[in-house]
Amino acid sequence: MESKREHLVQFIPAKKSIKIPHGYNLMQAIKDCGVRIESPCGGVGTCGRCLVRIKEGKVSTKKTEFISAEEKKKGYVFSCLSRVESDLVVETFSESEVSAKIEKGIFTEMDSKEYSDINRSEISSVEIDPWIKKAAITVEEPSLSYGTSDLFRLKKSIRQNLGIKDCLVPVDIIREIPEILRKKNLEVSVTVDSREEKLIDIKAGKAAGKSYGLALDIGTTSLVLYLADLGSGEIIASESEYNPQISFGEDVINRIVYAGRKDGLEKLREVVLDSINGMIYKLIFNSRIKADRIVSMMIAGNSTMMHLFYGVSPKYIREEPYVTTANKFPDSSAEVLGIKRIKKARIYEIQGVASYLGGDITAGVLATDMYKKKELALFIDLGTNGELVVGNSEWMMGASCSAGPAFEGGGVKCGIRAVDGAIEKVAIDRNSYRCSIEVIGGEKPGGICGSGLIDVIGEMYLKGVIDRKGKFNKDIGNKFLKRDGDIYRYILVDGGSTVDGKDIYITEVDIDNLIRAKAAVYAGIKTLLEEVGLGINDIEKIYIAGGLGKHIYIRNAIVIGMFPDIDNKKYFFLGNTSVTGAYLSLLSKSKYEQSSKIAEKITYIELSVSMNFMDRYVAGLFLPYTDMKDFPSVEKISGKPDEDAKNSF
Amino acid sequence: MESKREHLVQFIPAKKSIKIPHGYNLMQAIKDCGVRIESPCGGVGTCGRCLVRIKEGKVSTKKTEFISAEEKKKGYVFSCLSRVESDLVVETFSESEVSAKIEKGIFTEMDSKEYSDINRSEISSVEIDPWIKKAAITVEEPSLSYGTSDLFRLKKSIRQNLGIKDCLVPVDIIREIPEILRKKNLEVSVTVDSREEKLIDIKAGKAAGKSYGLALDIGTTSLVLYLADLGSGEIIASESEYNPQISFGEDVINRIVYAGRKDGLEKLREVVLDSINGMIYKLIFNSRIKADRIVSMMIAGNSTMMHLFYGVSPKYIREEPYVTTANKFPDSSAEVLGIKRIKKARIYEIQGVASYLGGDITAGVLATDMYKKKELALFIDLGTNGELVVGNSEWMMGASCSAGPAFEGGGVKCGIRAVDGAIEKVAIDRNSYRCSIEVIGGEKPGGICGSGLIDVIGEMYLKGVIDRKGKFNKDIGNKFLKRDGDIYRYILVDGGSTVDGKDIYITEVDIDNLIRAKAAVYAGIKTLLEEVGLGINDIEKIYIAGGLGKHIYIRNAIVIGMFPDIDNKKYFFLGNTSVTGAYLSLLSKSKYEQSSKIAEKITYIELSVSMNFMDRYVAGLFLPYTDMKDFPSVEKISGKPDEDAKNSF
Repeated sequence: MESKREHLVQFIPAKKSIKIPHGYNLMQAIKDCGVRIESPCGGVGTCGRCLVRIKEGKVSTKKTEFISAEEKKKGYVFSCLSRVESDLVVETFSESEVSAKIEKGIFTEMDSKEYSDINRSEISSVEIDPWIKKAAITVEEPSLSYGTSDLFRLKKSIRQNLGIKDCLVPVDIIREIPEILRKKNLEVSVTVDSREEKLIDIKAGKAAGKSYGLALDIGTTSLVLYLADLGSGEIIASESEYNPQISFGEDVINRIVYAGRKDGLEKLREVVLDSINGMIYKLIFNSRIKADRIVSMMIAGNSTMMHLFYGVSPKYIREEPYVTTANKFPDSSAEVLGIKRIKKARIYEIQGVASYLGGDITAGVLATDMYKKKELALFIDLGTNGELVVGNSEWMMGASCSAGPAFEGGGVKCGIRAVDGAIEKVAIDRNSYRCSIEVIGGEKPGGICGSGLIDVIGEMYLKGVIDRKGKFNKDIGNKFLKRDGDIYRYILVDGGSTVDGKDIYITEVDIDNLIRAKAAVYAGIKTLLEEVGLGINDIEKIYIAGGLGKHIYIRNAIVIGMFPDIDNKKYFFLGNTSVTGAYLSLLSKSKYEQSSKIAEKITYIELSVSMNFMDRYVAGLFLPYTDMKDFPSVEKISGKPDEDAKNSF
Repeated sequence: MESKREHLVQFIPAKKSIKIPHGYNLMQAIKDCGVRIESPCGGVGTCGRCLVRIKEGKVSTKKTEFISAEEKKKGYVFSCLSRVESDLVVETFSESEVSAKIEKGIFTEMDSKEYSDINRSEISSVEIDPWIKKAAITVEEPSLSYGTSDLFRLKKSIRQNLGIKDCLVPVDIIREIPEILRKKNLEVSVTVDSREEKLIDIKAGKAAGKSYGLALDIGTTSLVLYLADLGSGEIIASESEYNPQISFGEDVINRIVYAGRKDGLEKLREVVLDSINGMIYKLIFNSRIKADRIVSMMIAGNSTMMHLFYGVSPKYIREEPYVTTANKFPDSSAEVLGIKRIKKARIYEIQGVASYLGGDITAGVLATDMYKKKELALFIDLGTNGELVVGNSEWMMGASCSAGPAFEGGGVKCGIRAVDGAIEKVAIDRNSYRCSIEVIGGEKPGGICGSGLIDVIGEMYLKGVIDRKGKFNKDIGNKFLKRDGDIYRYILVDGGSTVDGKDIYITEVDIDNLIRAKAAVYAGIKTLLEEVGLGINDIEKIYIAGGLGKHIYIRNAIVIGMFPDIDNKKYFFLGNTSVTGAYLSLLSKSKYEQSSKIAEKITYIELSVSMNFMDRYVAGLFLPYTDMKDFPSVEKISGKPDEDAKNSF
């Protein structure tokens, strides 16, 4: 019987092992074996000190908010919560190793990329003046001749110290006032929402202390969360995770479909809330900040993500005439929205423009300076969708170009997201047609991500592997082109060198999908410009944002006809501008107000019904474009030996 | 054994009877006996159709919210919930009789007194314009070229129809919007809070229907609740009950003491909430109005009552320097405050002035016209406490004169509240010293209430039974004056004529308590006037409010030196002005705003620390007053045969 089986558990680096019965507690096994392990919480899964990593074998482990799905996939478990279910190889850590993991937030092994690409100039110039303020104040003494209420005197003091004329104090706080005022002789620390002119929290004594805020980007694919000091603006810590809604649909359309099922909306809301709550908990845990010091959270996301987060059906986003229920949801308390641990915090949302141009794009524009300057700028956010804004301080137009998920690996046989093992850069040898690759994380490749795909298409075109229509040239003696029935596969990496022993290749169907995606982006840019009588050459600056954007080799994006063929120096990479814009709005009242002004200023163009867009799109189904005049620098080198291409990286 | 006994149950008017075992279900007995009775709810106590009245005998009956303690005292029970415990005489009702009782709200047998004494001129002049408005509106159609959000178009329509510039729509309502808008082709009925500029409710279709509001007076002794049509202003129904907090303390001071005990505050809040919830349920049930059509409730009460209702400790009201925590609690939702069934309704409070001059007094002044006119008026509210406001449209001063509970029967041996069986009027024969009485309800007397006590003191003084100090004249041959040890009792009603067979009498200690109470009222009036250099004769109008006020025979109140000795024609009786003021504020935004202006205008004088007050108080410990010049009309008749007194009623 299963329960009578025994398993061999080996511990590294200790090089000790022990035989224990099936279902035995892993921490107990470690102790039995004489390996040193800490458990100050007494084995209830709250201290995190008994962290181990399962290198081989299987355990059943109780869920804990400390460990994300991603970390679990990497084998991290709390030994106290785990039962042995097979032979195991278990890596244990010294006390200092665990401390390092806990203190540096290594649980998620988040790299520093996320916030290194914040637009530093915008951030350094922001005046720190958040909606939520903390202050230590002294309330006037009552007297027989001045017998006004506690509330009146408290409000007076708030008015004098924080300039809020008539601060609303909710009943639940009023209930605490009599004792709090008198506890430390009328000295109190108040937390005030200057946007709603409302008292959020009050404590006895003058130790106002620091207050913190969160900036959250809810992307279709990823969630990114910053914890910031609202006094200094410093980002204390950050977290990023996949949006768990992915398992219910890769893109917004599939999410909307799922939300329409019975309990679908609630399910989608629940899973993303769980992730966000988990991320908040980790930030609190890792940063050792008291939860009640986090007083606000600013959220940006596309319209569908925001509908799902607020529990509102996104159904009509997908039905003509494509309207949202709201482009901006009202300020709410964390508690009302199901955000735990920081229940009293205020939750703000960055206003969106339209169904397919959400608050993430507004936040993106806020993170640039395009809304302040006269020069004509183009903002491109390449995530699961592709969104565009063109304009300057006078006017702005925006559109979603429905690029589809090709650049995130969707609709491409060997396409994967930009995770460890993804091919992110590709070059092709002009003579042998052999690919050179760079892999994220430097391990064996398991697939190819967006930036790699752009490189592949660009390189294949420049080296003659495919023609302008994206069809394989079968007469060039390309020995990496293999036939499987009617389908040709261009082998990028032989199975002998991949993580799962299978070839990584590309087909004409894949190429077709990618060409359609790039055609949509470029057609969107052209259409927007032409709406106001401008052309590609009028663009003075191009901002590239989004998870994909930051890894793109710009030259190849031009070669395939996705990005405008203008001077490289006009391109600027900003990374995740959605979270940056949210972060700026978190720190500054005026930035937040600016974001709504931006959203209201952007004129939305629905490309899916634009004949002009359709014409440009069809023209874009060639490499780089039907009319080569649009891509003069590509025309020069097409089909010829090309120095640029040789020096791809 | 008890359980084997049999009982005889007789039914009137059917003149049928049946013998059934102890503990038998009463409804079953009715059916067994062949008397027709309805039970559409199946005998679970929710339809009210099996209402009967126990005329004799005892039943044990399950509690139900439909039947108040007062009704139960009158014998009303639901037969389905009752078990027979003795021989019975039971009155049954025809179906139409029960219907009438249910429809007219006869369950409580509330007389029309409560709202007949509303100051009709104030009410007829009020412009009906409540904060909460309902409207049927049509929302603009979205189109591809006009792709704004549902929320934007809804807000626009609210702006155009109701003049609310930027109506806040909370997240929980936004969640319903997509379907509600589309259900009846963009036609919706909205309920909007124009005070907070917030959408409270939205329904599909144009059937906006009526909306209703509640006006509530939370008195120390009684709760009075009106249900009003917010369109016409009509009072649809009303309820009144004792404040159940009475069992934890008769007056505010005892309540404050109780609130200071462990869980005391929560207990006091709970019991009053239970009563209010029960009253609301009865109004809904009796009026057949849907609970969600009740959109607002306006509350007035003294400061301690309001602290307890809002769950705020009243502790510091009792400690020098006597400050409230708040003189006005913030607008809240019913749900937050624990009000059931009308959870979405907004709850407003009438602003108070000080610890001992609450929103009930502000409401009272609002129910008069004194704040609008130049003539000098005096407002007296005689409830469990005595509160005064003197002034005109230019200035107002107010005070609480700590009359104590004597006029509510407290501190007086045979004193009771003004309930059925209370002696409310008394006259004494000059020769025989025999009392003539009038009893509330016309039944046998069980005690004497406030207005009766004023009559007794006045009559005893005028007929020579007591002297100016309130001591019995023992040498006048008064055979109703009986000695019991050291204590003399003046017998008002012999035990042979009372409900419990015991004498109803009055002692010198009782008289002393009453003299102290009346002295406090008059001293308060004198002190307030003198603060601004005025005297009794400057008063042009006197408003008498409060539960006690309406039954007082004014002549005797002057005789004992409680009320100023001025022309009877200057006195006006207004009844419960607290609920009237709340009702006016419920109907009219401007009245509600006026109430806060009144509260802020009244200068509060703390009499308990005023030397002037103490002097006037001591001077008032004589009948009618130390200096008879204050009471010229009383001086004229003191100790002489008096026509006025003979014609007492």
